[in-house]
Amino acid sequence: MPLDAPADRLRAAANALERLRAAAPRVHVLTNVAAATLSANALLALGATPSLTDDPDETGDFVRTAGALAVNLGTPDPRRDRAIETAVDAAGAAKIPWLLDPVMIERAPARLAAARRLTARGPAVLRLNEAERAALFDGAQAPRYHGCLAVSGQTDQLRLGDRRAAVANGTPLFARTTGTGCALGAATAAFLAVEADPLQAALAGALAFGIAGELAAERAPGPGGFPAALLDALAALDPETVQTRGRIA
Amino acid sequence: MPLDAPADRLRAAANALERLRAAAPRVHVLTNVAAATLSANALLALGATPSLTDDPDETGDFVRTAGALAVNLGTPDPRRDRAIETAVDAAGAAKIPWLLDPVMIERAPARLAAARRLTARGPAVLRLNEAERAALFDGAQAPRYHGCLAVSGQTDQLRLGDRRAAVANGTPLFARTTGTGCALGAATAAFLAVEADPLQAALAGALAFGIAGELAAERAPGPGGFPAALLDALAALDPETVQTRGRIA
Amino acid sequence: MPLDAPADRLRAAANALERLRAAAPRVHVLTNVAAATLSANALLALGATPSLTDDPDETGDFVRTAGALAVNLGTPDPRRDRAIETAVDAAGAAKIPWLLDPVMIERAPARLAAARRLTARGPAVLRLNEAERAALFDGAQAPRYHGCLAVSGQTDQLRLGDRRAAVANGTPLFARTTGTGCALGAATAAFLAVEADPLQAALAGALAFGIAGELAAERAPGPGGFPAALLDALAALDPETVQTRGRIA
Repeated sequence: MPLDAPADRLRAAANALERLRAAAPRVHVLTNVAAATLSANALLALGATPSLTDDPDETGDFVRTAGALAVNLGTPDPRRDRAIETAVDAAGAAKIPWLLDPVMIERAPARLAAARRLTARGPAVLRLNEAERAALFDGAQAPRYHGCLAVSGQTDQLRLGDRRAAVANGTPLFARTTGTGCALGAATAAFLAVEADPLQAALAGALAFGIAGELAAERAPGPGGFPAALLDALAALDPETVQTRGRIA
Repeated sequence: MPLDAPADRLRAAANALERLRAAAPRVHVLTNVAAATLSANALLALGATPSLTDDPDETGDFVRTAGALAVNLGTPDPRRDRAIETAVDAAGAAKIPWLLDPVMIERAPARLAAARRLTARGPAVLRLNEAERAALFDGAQAPRYHGCLAVSGQTDQLRLGDRRAAVANGTPLFARTTGTGCALGAATAAFLAVEADPLQAALAGALAFGIAGELAAERAPGPGGFPAALLDALAALDPETVQTRGRIA
Repeated sequence: MPLDAPADRLRAAANALERLRAAAPRVHVLTNVAAATLSANALLALGATPSLTDDPDETGDFVRTAGALAVNLGTPDPRRDRAIETAVDAAGAAKIPWLLDPVMIERAPARLAAARRLTARGPAVLRLNEAERAALFDGAQAPRYHGCLAVSGQTDQLRLGDRRAAVANGTPLFARTTGTGCALGAATAAFLAVEADPLQAALAGALAFGIAGELAAERAPGPGGFPAALLDALAALDPETVQTRGRIA
């Protein structure tokens, strides 16, 4: 399948960034308290607009008119849980693509159950790490999932049906700064707003973050300055750099 | 009215900054989750002290002894909604000036209704953008408002009765960083604590943020480093710079 | 008692930092909304792992498997209040050390009552400022407390039974940046995970923050850049620097 050759994928990811900048979609983000500000700023740096309300009475209104939705399960809250249901309903009805990021579900049964129920509702992208993936799909209650599975790690492993891709860009500083993984989820949702192929959207998000992270690590003296440098690099990232620095397999 | 001549207004704004630094008022801030930290740090940078509790059981205790109150309607919450009622009651009883920032009310009917009800309670300053202003004052249910209307945009337009002023300082980076508008609301409330004229307080807040933003944009390489540079510039801002760099009409 | 001689204490604090880096404990943090991100990043910078959930249904699961717990009473919330009860129960049952940081209790009776009740449950370290200490232990309802009292101020005063210590490292920039005191509480909890003596853990936390703060103040142009510089300095802090720059009495 020539469209899935690495060079074609890099070109398509660069093109998606160009369209994201032009379209400036609004992305609704339901996320944990430690990641809200960084996620909003990552979207602004990429050229998208964030909205963050988790009031169940108005979340539907915000999602219906958004370009995409990102749902992150960190620091759960019964109110945000209701907002997530409302948001996923609205996304389904209005055919708005959404991403699920089931944070730390391996540590708490209630959160794991919520993650399984939401996975069964069919997010376009499911973004998680290996421990979370193992917990989610273990045993008889494992949900069926046919969307794009994006497993973060030293390389990001993406899979949609029998198509696969891996992104090798990144820096260890991601693991030393809170909320960067959650912000990657929000950024990937922004690419879903302009890219119909979920695997390609997840690839574009992972490349943008991985490359911007590498550039930021060259400038930041440590984890303290890393988030600001990451945002600066995301804001300055151009399609050419995606093509020349992207490392995918 | 000579007091409203630009040079007099700049001198009065510079003087208000001097009094703010000397008085170090505490400002109670009820705001959305993505703006809380930046708002608190902006108040500290200006020389004020923030308090942020949104527990309805104690918000009255905090507001009664504060110098001013800022109410921001982003990411609403029934509990914070009750705290806002308690806070506005306490501010009214203790004659503490307050500011209302009705974020994104054009997108959600419930939020718009809350904004109308609060506007009718008479905040000293109503801070919003043009889309929010149009939504708030459209139609038969438009609230009556006699305080200072501060409309943010490329220039900030201020109006109180038949007095008007415009502030031309600023930078496009404000629109690329989450929470800066909310932090301007908190800063304006701090000026309300030391300046009895709401138009002049709103002017001092808009000048301080606009000038500090310009200075920060000269140093920050992009939106990532902008919030820290803005806070540094606010902390270093002196009354002379307000007078020499301020651009009002 | 030779173990409490300043040079021995500095050596023990340096050693605790080394063990913290090696053990990389997870620290559960229940804290106010403005301090969550900085607290999580301070733990990551020191080499620990944060978890932040304040959902009462899962907080016990997270605390049971953590190395330590930090409880901060800023911006209270009935839901987080229940999570705090669950967390302190779980910490007691699993013998996990915990720290209490009763923020601004002198301003609100409900918060003071909660602080007294929690103090009576025996946190290993009670971290607060002088106004908070005076409010907590004033009058007939003062709780009995036999753990390590850590009073922040120009110097940090530590006391456990008849042992005392004072840390003179620090910078005025701490008071100009929101959440740094709360982050110190989280960092001190991380030291509790690897150091059985609560006085020595509090000392190690105060030294790490005080020294990193001094180094950050040399580099940061003002309060805006201070948090990032503080995190960078915490990440780069080595045991030798604790011994050579630490100033204790």
